Amino acid sequence: MRKLYVFDTTLRDGEQSLGITLNVREKLEIGHQLVKLGVDIIEAGFPASSPGDMESVRTMAQELKGVTICGLTRAVEADIDLCAQALRKAEYPRIHTGIGVSPVHMEKKLKLNPDQVVEQAVAAVKYAKKYVSDVEFYAEDAFRSDPIFLARVIENVISAGATVVNIPDTVGYASPWEYGELIGYVIKNVKNIDKAIVSVHCHNDLGMATANSLAGIRAGASQVEGTINGIGERAGNTSLEEVIMAIYTRRAAYGVESKVNTREISATSRLVSRITGVTVPDHKAIVGANAFNHASGIHQDGVLKDRETYEIIQPETIGVAQNLISLTARSGRHALQHCLEELGYQVSGAQLDDVYKRFLQLADLKKEVFDQDLFVLMGDSGGALNSIVLQSMSIATNGIEMATATVSLEIEGTIMTDAACGNGPVNALFNTIDRITGNTAILEDYTLKSVTRSSEALGEATVKLRHEDGRLVVGKGFSTDIIEASAKAYINALEKREIRPDSGGSEEEA
Amino acid sequence: MRKLYVFDTTLRDGEQSLGITLNVREKLEIGHQLVKLGVDIIEAGFPASSPGDMESVRTMAQELKGVTICGLTRAVEADIDLCAQALRKAEYPRIHTGIGVSPVHMEKKLKLNPDQVVEQAVAAVKYAKKYVSDVEFYAEDAFRSDPIFLARVIENVISAGATVVNIPDTVGYASPWEYGELIGYVIKNVKNIDKAIVSVHCHNDLGMATANSLAGIRAGASQVEGTINGIGERAGNTSLEEVIMAIYTRRAAYGVESKVNTREISATSRLVSRITGVTVPDHKAIVGANAFNHASGIHQDGVLKDRETYEIIQPETIGVAQNLISLTARSGRHALQHCLEELGYQVSGAQLDDVYKRFLQLADLKKEVFDQDLFVLMGDSGGALNSIVLQSMSIATNGIEMATATVSLEIEGTIMTDAACGNGPVNALFNTIDRITGNTAILEDYTLKSVTRSSEALGEATVKLRHEDGRLVVGKGFSTDIIEASAKAYINALEKREIRPDSGGSEEEA
Repeated sequence: MRKLYVFDTTLRDGEQSLGITLNVREKLEIGHQLVKLGVDIIEAGFPASSPGDMESVRTMAQELKGVTICGLTRAVEADIDLCAQALRKAEYPRIHTGIGVSPVHMEKKLKLNPDQVVEQAVAAVKYAKKYVSDVEFYAEDAFRSDPIFLARVIENVISAGATVVNIPDTVGYASPWEYGELIGYVIKNVKNIDKAIVSVHCHNDLGMATANSLAGIRAGASQVEGTINGIGERAGNTSLEEVIMAIYTRRAAYGVESKVNTREISATSRLVSRITGVTVPDHKAIVGANAFNHASGIHQDGVLKDRETYEIIQPETIGVAQNLISLTARSGRHALQHCLEELGYQVSGAQLDDVYKRFLQLADLKKEVFDQDLFVLMGDSGGALNSIVLQSMSIATNGIEMATATVSLEIEGTIMTDAACGNGPVNALFNTIDRITGNTAILEDYTLKSVTRSSEALGEATVKLRHEDGRLVVGKGFSTDIIEASAKAYINALEKREIRPDSGGSEEEA
Repeated sequence: MRKLYVFDTTLRDGEQSLGITLNVREKLEIGHQLVKLGVDIIEAGFPASSPGDMESVRTMAQELKGVTICGLTRAVEADIDLCAQALRKAEYPRIHTGIGVSPVHMEKKLKLNPDQVVEQAVAAVKYAKKYVSDVEFYAEDAFRSDPIFLARVIENVISAGATVVNIPDTVGYASPWEYGELIGYVIKNVKNIDKAIVSVHCHNDLGMATANSLAGIRAGASQVEGTINGIGERAGNTSLEEVIMAIYTRRAAYGVESKVNTREISATSRLVSRITGVTVPDHKAIVGANAFNHASGIHQDGVLKDRETYEIIQPETIGVAQNLISLTARSGRHALQHCLEELGYQVSGAQLDDVYKRFLQLADLKKEVFDQDLFVLMGDSGGALNSIVLQSMSIATNGIEMATATVSLEIEGTIMTDAACGNGPVNALFNTIDRITGNTAILEDYTLKSVTRSSEALGEATVKLRHEDGRLVVGKGFSTDIIEASAKAYINALEKREIRPDSGGSEEEA
C-alpha cells in the first residue's frame, strides 16, 4: 500500500482562525501531542508574520524530534531567510513556500502576469533549497486556476527542486469529483511529477473538505494537509481525524495507509479544543461526544444484537476509553495514576502529587470522578500560570439591584482587595478584577459549561479578551463553583496576555 | 434544469438525536419556519413510536399548508394505520414506509430472508396507497446491501405504487464516488425508475454526508433528505443548508435547482439551534459564526481588493443581515420593528408592545442593542411559558464555604419561598428550586454563554434535565445577569416537562 503523509497545520492555518493567539508553551503542548499522534509533518507557523510565530517555529524545531517541522513563507527571499533561521535546529526541516496561481489572485492581488508568477515561484524554491533539501511549494487558489498553467508551474518548481507540491482549494469551492479530477490532471500532465509528492489542502466552506481531500488521495495524492477538529478560518480546514478514520475504516477502497496512531485521536482532539477554546460540537464526525451514541430504540436494539448493524468505528479505536475503575475520594494515588495513563497522561513525582491533591479536593465535592473530570484536572495543571492568584471573593446579589463583588488577588506577592458593581455576579466580578489589575482589554466572549454529567458538575469557563492592539487572548478556568471558574478564566486570560510580547496574526495561507 | 425536492427531517431524524424531546409547540415553530424556508417535504415524526409523535404529525398536518407533510412508519400495517390517521388533515400527505435491505439488517435484526423482505416491502407500500397517493419507500441500510437485490426491491415497490424511493447510507459509511455509483446503478437498472423520484439520505459518520448527497444528486437523484444544522444521531444527518448552498453556488455543475429561499437559512439555523439546544459551532460551513470571517491579514486584504478572492458566498444570500440602524434606549418602536423585519420577524400589535418593553429594559442595561440581542429577545418571547414565575432571588457566597440561595417562585398564583445551599451560586439556586418545586429530574448538562459581544452581554443559559423515565428536556433562559439566566433556564425546563404527557424516543430510522 502507498504511504499517506499526514501534514498537520493546526498551529499555522488553524491558529490563523479567529485571531486567537496561542503562546509558545501552548503550541508546544499541542506539538508534543501531535508527535504522539504520529503525524509526519507539523507546520508550526509563518515566521515572517510576527516575532511570536518566529519563536514558535524555532521552539518546535528545537523540541520536537522524529517529525518534520515546517514553516510557511511567501515566495520572497526575506520570508525564506527568516524561516530557515527558525528551522535551524530541526531534525527534519521543511520550508513551505508558494504563490497564487489563479487569475483572480495573479491579477487582483499580486498584479503579476503568468510568466512573472512562474519566475517568482521557481526563484523562491531555488532560494529555499539553499537552506534545506525538503521544500514544499503551494500553488495558492490552485482549484480556480487554469489547469494547463497550473501544470506548467508545478513542472517548473519540481525542476527547481520542490519535493512536495501542494494543490490547495483555498476558497473551499470544489466538489469531490472536480478536485479529484484536478489532482489526476496534474499527476497525468506534469512530466516530472514522480520526483515530488502531491499534497491536498482543502477548506470546508461547502462542508466538503474531507470528501475533497479523499478524492484527491484517490486520484494519487500522497500527502494530506489539515487541522485537528477542522479548526481554521471561515468554515475551517480539512479535519485530519476524519480523513484518517475514513482511510482507516476503508483501507481497501483507498489503497493508502498512514502511520498515525488512531488511539491518540480523542486525546489530541480534546487537547486542541481545550487550548484553543474552540469547542467540538457534540455531533462532530469521529470526535464529537455523540459520535458513538445511539439514542433511538431501534438503533440501541440493533447495536445490542450486532454492533456492526449501526456502528462502523469502535470507540476504542480513537482512544475513547471506557474507564473501568471508579475513582472516589477513597481512591489512592496509584489508581489515579493508572486512570490517567489510560487517558494518555504520563504523570509522576511532584506533578502527580499536585494532581492528586486537586483530585482529592474535587472528589470531596463529587461522589465519583469521571474521565472528563480528569481531562479537566490535567488541563488545569497545565494552564494555571500563577502570576495572579485568586485569594478570595464574595458576591452579593438579590437579582433586582446590581450585584456587588469583593475580590482579593495576590499579584507578585502583594495582596490587593477591591469591590465593584455589575449587572449580575460575573459582570461585577470582572469589573472588580479590572479595577484591581487595571485591565483595559474588552470581554469579547464568555462561555461556561458543565464538563461532567452530574449535579455537582465541574464548571469550565472560557473567557476571550480583546486587547487594544486587536489581539484576542483565551483564558480557561475550572471549579465546581461557576463564579470561581469564571474568575479563574478571566485571570488566566490576563496572565497569558503577559507571556507573549508580540504577535499580529499571520498574513498568508495556502 | 431538473427540480431538486428538499425533504427536511429535522423534526424526525433530527429530534431522534440526543434523546431530546421537543414539545408540539416547539415543533410547530420550527415547522412554520421550514415552510418559510421553502422546503418541499417536512417529515414531522414517527406516529407509532409515541403519542407525542402522533400528536406532532397530526398538528403539523393541520397547521402547515403548501407543503407535503410526511410521517415515518415501519413496514407494518399498525404503523401505517396510525400514520394515515395522523396525516388526515394534511393538504399533501405522504407516508414514508420501509424495511432493512442489507444482509446484516435482514439476518440479524429482521430475521427474514430476502424474498420475505420484498414481500413485506410491497405489502406495506400497497397498504399505504390505500390511504394516500404519495408513498415514499426507504430501503434501510441500502448502501451496504447487494445492489442487485436492492434494484429488485426498488422495482417491486415502484410497481406497488411508491412515488419516491429513498436509498439511504444509514451508517454513514459511503464515500462520494461509491454512493454516486450506487444511485447511478439503481437509476440504470430499475426498469420502472422513471415512475418514481430517487431520494438520497446520508449520515455524517465519516464527515461526508454533504458530499455523498451531492454525488447522489449528480448521479440522478431528485430529492435530498437532511436536517437543519446537520443535527441527528451520532455525527448527524446531512446538513440541508450545505447541500442547498453547494447547489446554489454551483448551479451549472449540478444541473438542479431547488425552490428554497436561501435568505431564510440563517434564521432557520438559529431557530433550530435555540429550540433544540444544539449549538452551531463557529466554524460550521455556511451557518457558523465565522463562516464569513477573514481573520488573517492577507485574506482581509484580498477581500478588500476583490471580494471574490476569498469569498464564494455573500453573507446576505443566506440572510445574515448587516444591520445599519443602531438601536439604543432612545430608539422608537418603529426602528425596532424595522430591524426585526430585516431579521425576518413579522411583529406588530401586542407582540410588538411586549418585545419593545423588553427591548427597552435591555437597552437600559446596554449601550447598544445588536442583531444577536434581537434574536434572543424574540426567542425569549416565544419560549417563556409562565406557569412558574421567578419572583425574586438572592445569593450569598464567599467562594470558600458553600453558597446559599434564597428564591421566591410564583406557581399557579401562590408565592413560595425557600433557601438551600450548594457548591457555588448556581448549584445553590438549582437546589432551592428543586426544594420548592419538588423536582427530581437530574441536571445532565448546563451551559452558559454570552450571546452578544460586549461587557454588558446578554447571557443565554441552557439546562438539560433528565427525568426518571429517561426523557431529556431542554430549557433556555436569558438575562444580563447569568445567575438569573440560569434560574430562568432551569424553570423553563421544569415548565416544559409539564406540556407533553408522553413520549419515549422514536424507534426507527431510514
